[in-house]
Amino acid sequence: MNALHKLGFPEGTKLLIIHADDAGLSHSENTATIRALEKGIVNSYGIMVPCPWFYEIALFARNNAHIDNGIHLTLTCEWENYKFGPVLPASEVPSLVDRNGYFYKTREELKKNALVEDVRKELQAQIEKALQFGLKPTHMDSHMYSVGANPEFLKIYRDLGKKYNLPVLINRQMMEMVGLDPDLNIEKTNFVIDKTYVGESRYFENDKLDDYYSDILENLTSGLNLILIHPAFDNDEMKGITINHPNFGSGWRQLDFDFFTSEKTRLKLEENHIQFITWKNMLRRSLF
Amino acid sequence: MNALHKLGFPEGTKLLIIHADDAGLSHSENTATIRALEKGIVNSYGIMVPCPWFYEIALFARNNAHIDNGIHLTLTCEWENYKFGPVLPASEVPSLVDRNGYFYKTREELKKNALVEDVRKELQAQIEKALQFGLKPTHMDSHMYSVGANPEFLKIYRDLGKKYNLPVLINRQMMEMVGLDPDLNIEKTNFVIDKTYVGESRYFENDKLDDYYSDILENLTSGLNLILIHPAFDNDEMKGITINHPNFGSGWRQLDFDFFTSEKTRLKLEENHIQFITWKNMLRRSLF
Repeated sequence: MNALHKLGFPEGTKLLIIHADDAGLSHSENTATIRALEKGIVNSYGIMVPCPWFYEIALFARNNAHIDNGIHLTLTCEWENYKFGPVLPASEVPSLVDRNGYFYKTREELKKNALVEDVRKELQAQIEKALQFGLKPTHMDSHMYSVGANPEFLKIYRDLGKKYNLPVLINRQMMEMVGLDPDLNIEKTNFVIDKTYVGESRYFENDKLDDYYSDILENLTSGLNLILIHPAFDNDEMKGITINHPNFGSGWRQLDFDFFTSEKTRLKLEENHIQFITWKNMLRRSLF
Repeated sequence: MNALHKLGFPEGTKLLIIHADDAGLSHSENTATIRALEKGIVNSYGIMVPCPWFYEIALFARNNAHIDNGIHLTLTCEWENYKFGPVLPASEVPSLVDRNGYFYKTREELKKNALVEDVRKELQAQIEKALQFGLKPTHMDSHMYSVGANPEFLKIYRDLGKKYNLPVLINRQMMEMVGLDPDLNIEKTNFVIDKTYVGESRYFENDKLDDYYSDILENLTSGLNLILIHPAFDNDEMKGITINHPNFGSGWRQLDFDFFTSEKTRLKLEENHIQFITWKNMLRRSLF
């Protein structure tokens, strides 16, 4: 049974979530995310609990519980000069951190070093911290899809979804992106997002990111679709964070913000009869 | 024996340290501090180890060991939406944190809640973290002079100075600012900064901060003087951090940066025969 069917929509419906990842990362990311939710067509976002600006976005989420907000479970910190680590003391999850107590930069380092038990403890602690703040998360996904670093982490992720009764992002393209075989790692009972889209370097580098997003909207297929974006402002703070990292860097994030808050894009959605859906208004009982 | 005498300078010498507090607080603070050290007349700075941008400024300090860099020992976080807490797990120093695990906003809350033993553990952990990063601190002082919240904290601060062989900022005006009686809390053997200057709201609110700084330079008295400033750029990040907190806010910090990087101010120093000194080039053995 496909997602549309499970959700009770007729065949042919083009359902879409436009999801802002990385809220909490910085003030720039928070401000742009909030503006894109309020003025643009972004309709869901994920919060990084271990990040320095978590508190600011948590206040927003608490005061705007009607807007879909997920937990963007975080096990990596890809930046050069801006560092964060687990919400648990490094001494409790030593396999997740470098010698300075920060998360590893890459999924590969994470995969090489992280013990399954530490991953479980830390991800659970992130969820608990969000709940303690009074957040009412609508879903969970994962920063850099690092929960896909290996099948055991993915199992933890799925288990936590069940434990907290929260939908988790399971999708073929995301698994392929991180090198997991979807045929081996998607279980029959999983609720699966049909198509997930996320920008790639080759588009950004060739000034084709807008075209990529336009193409997605113009050619969206029937089913449950998800576009993952990273809106932020290309300002000093964001430039400092993403220094030497043009991939998902500051300029890229500004483009994401601009595209998904433009009137032209809003019209494109209408012209293409795209229908918004949120995690919240998916019937939860159908998801597990 | 006064400071000049101890340092071997003739009577009449006007010695000055211009010290940038709060490095590590933000990218804005770091960038402005670095520029003020490199292009301006700021000649010393203090690093906040528990802050999100510690890593960036620690790299700078490690690569620029010739520039005076101190540890700006931190026990409070005065900001509304931007939060940080101890470098130790909150569970190890529970008396230092609010229910969310962050530092209290004020010295008063700190004083009311903090156990002496937790203060000792946390301050020592901040020093140890700086040393583990390969920093070679030249001195220590304290954010919001919170080590002056009570005499027992001040004793810890002094003890840590002795333990790590680092000069600590001891000064009558700072004690008065935080409500400690200098006559009771300065020991005979302490090395004391004769005069410490720090901006006040009444100057900033009446657009007189520049005048205040100019007056200091024009009327500097003989002895060892210290001006504490907080250079940062009045940009989105800094506005976000200092929201609803004009006191030492984003605009104030931009003024600090502008004044202490201007050619006019540099000339004023020359005209008034002011001589720079750093913590590093004070003879350490005379300080304790």
